[in-house]
Amino acid sequence: MSTEIPDFPTKITPQSEDFGRWYIDVVRRAELADYSPVKGCMVIRPYGYAIWELIQQGLDRRFKATGHVNAYFPLLIPESLLTREAQHVEGFAPQVAWVTQGGDEVLEERLVIRPTSETIIGTMYAKWIQSWRDLPVLINQWANVVRWEKVTRLFLRTTEFLWQEGHTAHETAEEAQEETLRMLAVYKEFAETELAMPVVDGQKTESEKFAGADRTYSIEALVRDGRALQAGTSHNLGQNFAKGFNITFQARDKSVQFVHGTSWGVSTRMIGGVIMMHGDDGGLILPPRIAPHQVVIVPIPRGNWRETVLPKAEEIRDALVARGVRVKLDDRDSQTPGWKFNEWELRGVPLRLEIGPKDLEKSQVVLARRDTREKSFVPMDGLGAHVEELLATIQQALYDRAVTYRDEHTVEADGYEAFKSLMAGRPGFVISPWCGSATCEASIKNQTQATIRNIPFASTPPVGKSCLVCDAPATAHAWFAKSY
Amino acid sequence: MSTEIPDFPTKITPQSEDFGRWYIDVVRRAELADYSPVKGCMVIRPYGYAIWELIQQGLDRRFKATGHVNAYFPLLIPESLLTREAQHVEGFAPQVAWVTQGGDEVLEERLVIRPTSETIIGTMYAKWIQSWRDLPVLINQWANVVRWEKVTRLFLRTTEFLWQEGHTAHETAEEAQEETLRMLAVYKEFAETELAMPVVDGQKTESEKFAGADRTYSIEALVRDGRALQAGTSHNLGQNFAKGFNITFQARDKSVQFVHGTSWGVSTRMIGGVIMMHGDDGGLILPPRIAPHQVVIVPIPRGNWRETVLPKAEEIRDALVARGVRVKLDDRDSQTPGWKFNEWELRGVPLRLEIGPKDLEKSQVVLARRDTREKSFVPMDGLGAHVEELLATIQQALYDRAVTYRDEHTVEADGYEAFKSLMAGRPGFVISPWCGSATCEASIKNQTQATIRNIPFASTPPVGKSCLVCDAPATAHAWFAKSY
Repeated sequence: MSTEIPDFPTKITPQSEDFGRWYIDVVRRAELADYSPVKGCMVIRPYGYAIWELIQQGLDRRFKATGHVNAYFPLLIPESLLTREAQHVEGFAPQVAWVTQGGDEVLEERLVIRPTSETIIGTMYAKWIQSWRDLPVLINQWANVVRWEKVTRLFLRTTEFLWQEGHTAHETAEEAQEETLRMLAVYKEFAETELAMPVVDGQKTESEKFAGADRTYSIEALVRDGRALQAGTSHNLGQNFAKGFNITFQARDKSVQFVHGTSWGVSTRMIGGVIMMHGDDGGLILPPRIAPHQVVIVPIPRGNWRETVLPKAEEIRDALVARGVRVKLDDRDSQTPGWKFNEWELRGVPLRLEIGPKDLEKSQVVLARRDTREKSFVPMDGLGAHVEELLATIQQALYDRAVTYRDEHTVEADGYEAFKSLMAGRPGFVISPWCGSATCEASIKNQTQATIRNIPFASTPPVGKSCLVCDAPATAHAWFAKSY
Repeated sequence: MSTEIPDFPTKITPQSEDFGRWYIDVVRRAELADYSPVKGCMVIRPYGYAIWELIQQGLDRRFKATGHVNAYFPLLIPESLLTREAQHVEGFAPQVAWVTQGGDEVLEERLVIRPTSETIIGTMYAKWIQSWRDLPVLINQWANVVRWEKVTRLFLRTTEFLWQEGHTAHETAEEAQEETLRMLAVYKEFAETELAMPVVDGQKTESEKFAGADRTYSIEALVRDGRALQAGTSHNLGQNFAKGFNITFQARDKSVQFVHGTSWGVSTRMIGGVIMMHGDDGGLILPPRIAPHQVVIVPIPRGNWRETVLPKAEEIRDALVARGVRVKLDDRDSQTPGWKFNEWELRGVPLRLEIGPKDLEKSQVVLARRDTREKSFVPMDGLGAHVEELLATIQQALYDRAVTYRDEHTVEADGYEAFKSLMAGRPGFVISPWCGSATCEASIKNQTQATIRNIPFASTPPVGKSCLVCDAPATAHAWFAKSY
């Protein structure tokens, strides 16, 4: 399975020329991730991993604030456990990696590398949960998972990826449903606040739901080539895994009941979404809240700058760091300021701070925004507050721009011909009435590649309309798109 | 490979009766970890994982302060990569898990689940490093690894475990050696400061060094049954992996050179060390700095306590939390105070704060130390500062007690008969002169089970002494022990 790693791109392909190529160029040139010698597996490089650390911190804080705790379950799952929930095994068996030998020993029972952990966690919950007093169990795990993918793309779809998976057990169906929606709301708030990524929250169709769930909900983003990206999912598992794994408890009325389960997850795929949502032909544009460096300081090397400009640059850095701003001071001799401007733009640093001998005289600096490329002269006095304000402004501007993009790329189509001609291009979201049948859904996918991303909570009822495909009355306005 | 999970222990076996049994009872009853249905793999439960999170934070902060960044490399390694460094494959091949099938596809080349990542990381470094300007590369990874172990024990030796692995590349041999020792010193300082775990730092013998290293260094702790525990290792890899993976750079003089490498790691095994180093027959004793709950507040439920005592308990909790203390308020109705005292002692919470109606009248609380079981009445006024001070005192007391234990269990033996009779018991460390030969080392191990833990940096030269076993002049005072 050892594969050759292609050479590094020397320049970034413009988005308009080839969006897919642009994406890979940015990921590799900005040193976010790289191909590895293992087919379908990527290396997350330090700059990309620093973004993941910020995502982890932001999510972990929210999980703990909603009462969850972290734990860790085994990577390897015996085959006999995977097969205990019928729909689950059907969904996942075709895409798992099999361990058949340990050391010199050929295993009596094969093990799979977890593609997700419902089965191993369910086995433990059956041991741990005895009484209604033990409920709810609210556990999250940060882990790697492996799904054998045929077609992969850095961050967006890789054989191994990093994620978090929440697994909860509840006394009642109502509590499980509340939890399912609570965590979807956490994902939405996180995506919009931290990633500046507007998302549509709603319910997946029967054919798109998680293997073994009663209901699956998702948040869906629209990236800049008009494709949708599923950025997070939350599943109400009902009592399916409880029955498969015999997770029972003594209820308040002394009867023995099965627990009601949920699971929910987001992954390193989110980073791919951020890149595709905000980037431009110059490279990456990072929202300040998840930027490893929020400000890069580039001193202008004129005259005896190491004695004059550099100490001031260091002083500014220290003052900003003391305010909690993440700052990189690029004082390398080996590169020109122009080279550095270009490099940090490519890496998406939200704000560049330039300072040279003339600025020093005037007690000012130059601030350059990555998103708008606007430059302004700003007095040293009050600089810290000004920088913080500007970072907040950029965060909001990126979000607003993404909302505008999405709104401009969301259209309605009630008739199938109109729908098909829209989908011949890449229109973004197309809202259409649908009868609820999997047959019509499959037929649309076959003919246009578009799938129902979800039925948004906020979608209007299709009063008096008939299905896009058949003549049956529509039951919902579904949001269709081509997707990653 | 699916195995039965034994039932929960109902009581803790005394240390004096069976230390190994005591250990497993504590781990499971305190809900730190549990057996899993996968042979040799454990589940780290939320309380145990919370300790790991604190360990991670403490180490990660130190790694970043010494210039390191995090990244993530693939879990799966092609067989052809593993075999590129001859000693490395010889050391690790017997204990790896093999993936032979992905989905429906039988793999052309087998993959191993990483037992450690020198090979996959080396492959990437060969791509990334071009010039001396790219050096040093200072990368750390937090990850799971799998080593197929025949005999396992929760935390101390498991088929899968969590760890961090640092992998660095340097321009010169001197820099690599400095890095190797720098990180060993970071581990020592961390273990002693955060875990209250005194360790002996020194160099491993040739036969105990890492497969593929030039030199291996370790920190070794002594736990309460007189066995040593290797708590962290740091390896100077020389140019071995650089040559195996062709990691070269253009040097300052334009010549092409191989990089000099290091790697270093600590794992969840550290948690096992903490348990065995500080615990007693009542269960766990956690050093405050890594205790998930540093203080547990137990309100005494008399009269209308929910209206009187509880609000005060909540107020105290909030005030302590505001000072950065980790506090658990146990206000369950379902359990008596006595049950709670016992339970939180078992779980090793360093400080218990009791408050009842009488305390309320006197404007005081009761503080009970887990380590000494001392109780004291403390006025409400100035409580926060008092608690902080007491936590620091407990941290220091645990460290001091461990140093005393180690010193009392470290003896010298110059003659082999004396050595053998000491090792018939479980004496702790035995310091003996050794000639440096692997033959004598192996013979000692065969006859007594004792191994050389390391040659401490601080060990005195064996002037004029001859080897414990043969008549050759001793080259060092080696520290022997039976070990985990």
